[in-house]
Amino acid sequence: MTSSAPAISSPPSNSRDRVKELVLSLQNEICAGLEEIDGDGQFQQESWDRPEGGGGRSRVMCDGKIFEQAGVNFSEVHGKELPPSIVNQRPEAKGHPWFATGTSMVLHPRNPYIPTVHLNYRYFEAGPVWWFGGGADLTPFYPFLSDAKHFHSVHKEACDLINPSLHKVFKPWCDEYFFLKHRDETRGIGGIFYDYQDGSGTIYKGQEPEGLAAKKSKEIGQCSLQWEELFSLAQACGKAFLPAYLPIIEKRKNQTYSERERNFQLYRRGRYVEFNLVWDRGTIFGLQTNGRTESILMSLPPLARWEYGYQAPKDSREELLTQIFTKPQEWFTDKSLEEKCRLYQAVD
Amino acid sequence: MTSSAPAISSPPSNSRDRVKELVLSLQNEICAGLEEIDGDGQFQQESWDRPEGGGGRSRVMCDGKIFEQAGVNFSEVHGKELPPSIVNQRPEAKGHPWFATGTSMVLHPRNPYIPTVHLNYRYFEAGPVWWFGGGADLTPFYPFLSDAKHFHSVHKEACDLINPSLHKVFKPWCDEYFFLKHRDETRGIGGIFYDYQDGSGTIYKGQEPEGLAAKKSKEIGQCSLQWEELFSLAQACGKAFLPAYLPIIEKRKNQTYSERERNFQLYRRGRYVEFNLVWDRGTIFGLQTNGRTESILMSLPPLARWEYGYQAPKDSREELLTQIFTKPQEWFTDKSLEEKCRLYQAVD
Repeated sequence: MTSSAPAISSPPSNSRDRVKELVLSLQNEICAGLEEIDGDGQFQQESWDRPEGGGGRSRVMCDGKIFEQAGVNFSEVHGKELPPSIVNQRPEAKGHPWFATGTSMVLHPRNPYIPTVHLNYRYFEAGPVWWFGGGADLTPFYPFLSDAKHFHSVHKEACDLINPSLHKVFKPWCDEYFFLKHRDETRGIGGIFYDYQDGSGTIYKGQEPEGLAAKKSKEIGQCSLQWEELFSLAQACGKAFLPAYLPIIEKRKNQTYSERERNFQLYRRGRYVEFNLVWDRGTIFGLQTNGRTESILMSLPPLARWEYGYQAPKDSREELLTQIFTKPQEWFTDKSLEEKCRLYQAVD
Repeated sequence: MTSSAPAISSPPSNSRDRVKELVLSLQNEICAGLEEIDGDGQFQQESWDRPEGGGGRSRVMCDGKIFEQAGVNFSEVHGKELPPSIVNQRPEAKGHPWFATGTSMVLHPRNPYIPTVHLNYRYFEAGPVWWFGGGADLTPFYPFLSDAKHFHSVHKEACDLINPSLHKVFKPWCDEYFFLKHRDETRGIGGIFYDYQDGSGTIYKGQEPEGLAAKKSKEIGQCSLQWEELFSLAQACGKAFLPAYLPIIEKRKNQTYSERERNFQLYRRGRYVEFNLVWDRGTIFGLQTNGRTESILMSLPPLARWEYGYQAPKDSREELLTQIFTKPQEWFTDKSLEEKCRLYQAVD
């Protein structure tokens, strides 16, 4: 296996400290930005140790003005050997001690016109291999085309700073990863997602060999990135988060809503729970391998509903969500989206 | 493998029809009993076909007087080959067409003093093998020792009718199956659970070779049951459900409660969601193999909460739940339970 594996360059000697510092500063900056826009809620911090090695700091805001719940985690953990679910993807890591650090976040706003959002940037080292992973994705309840375009364009710009090929793969990768097979729906409008980025081979290293991400990656071909470029990518994407999300909050926060919108938001939050507990590899891996349960499940919403056989009323804003905004879309180039969204007064 | 497998007797020629009739009549009787005690809510029925073969009828009551949501499913399905997750447990089924029929049910009462409850009885045939499985378990929020004893004793009596050894294994099997490893809690106070009952070998055929169920089963040794006895077991246990549950409703339904109890109920319902989506093999199997999503997820509560770092107040009724009623207990023989429950006014 190692003989056919592409060569992976060595990381700089202070790699762990540099990524740790980056994700800690992302956690700090993002929490500060969120507290500022909320204007009322404050993050409570809890530091914790992991018995098998390492630890983290979890920050939670409850009952803010904007955020019904916001959780922003940092962790730096290490161990003797990675579990089979990861080693199968990275056979070179087998038998080696490992190190991982990252930040992850899920925000559940109160107003159903403000989308839920998720972010995660992480870095692994294990023996001869290292890799970056991460991304950010948006889950609206009452979507607007302009919000989708804004979120995607800010993240595209961040990726383009490093290499103009990346976004072509990271965008469909996100659609394919945050997908509820049992509902035939994406979790939301996507954003970017990437994993196992070690600078070798082709960009896509996911589990859908027949998907659009794999196809785009093959078209692009070999794409060698240095450790420094991938570090800069995590930095640029992480820093893109506030400019990608805060303007959407500003635009939607004064939108009034009634019980109908609130009920639909709670219903759709049920889908968020379903994705995280049934399909999200990170969550399942954490729960099944003695992770810190309360920090892992900070992603779950403060309140969620299920309703048997719910059907959105015909031609309603609720219907728009499942017709258009929970299917993969070409937000910039598909000109028919504007026309469709106009019918629902959901362009801007 | 087949040479060392114990001999399994043939089922009667009309086995499929007989079990189908049994589970259909259980669905009918239980729904009638639930409508009667609710006094207001009525079940709505939906029949459906499964594209790969078979179908079912789902019944849901929403917004009843007692039941905030009640779902009672029947299904009769067949296919060309069972998935690996089952074939691994029953290698003799490999390569054979299969048949399965069963009824399953989850009730979510509104009043936090009435426990949530689950029931499932099912039957499989696949080539040379057949087996029965099922059980019922209770999940209280504000528990009473007398309710736990009542629910367990009615189910024990039903099992004892067939064979006095069965309950010794089915009770701990239930505790071990309905267990949230990531919380180190049982889902509730248990009841009975059994699977892969084909009348051959020892009683326990689960996945915890070191657990109490396996130990009790080994102590008992060989236990040969005929198809007819296992059919009678499903019948007796299924018929035990209403007498096991309805008296608890009668006893608790007029208990007043405030926002505190309601909030705790919603919080604990989050645990129900976590179990069903992370650990329940039936749910995960159904979702990952193109089952009817709405019927599978009828088990999820109409409303649920999550709260980071929740701690029950010291010496509170809420604390009692996690101290005593979400750990496996010997409800009949452990005399210390009464003393502990008395401190919380939770005996009767």
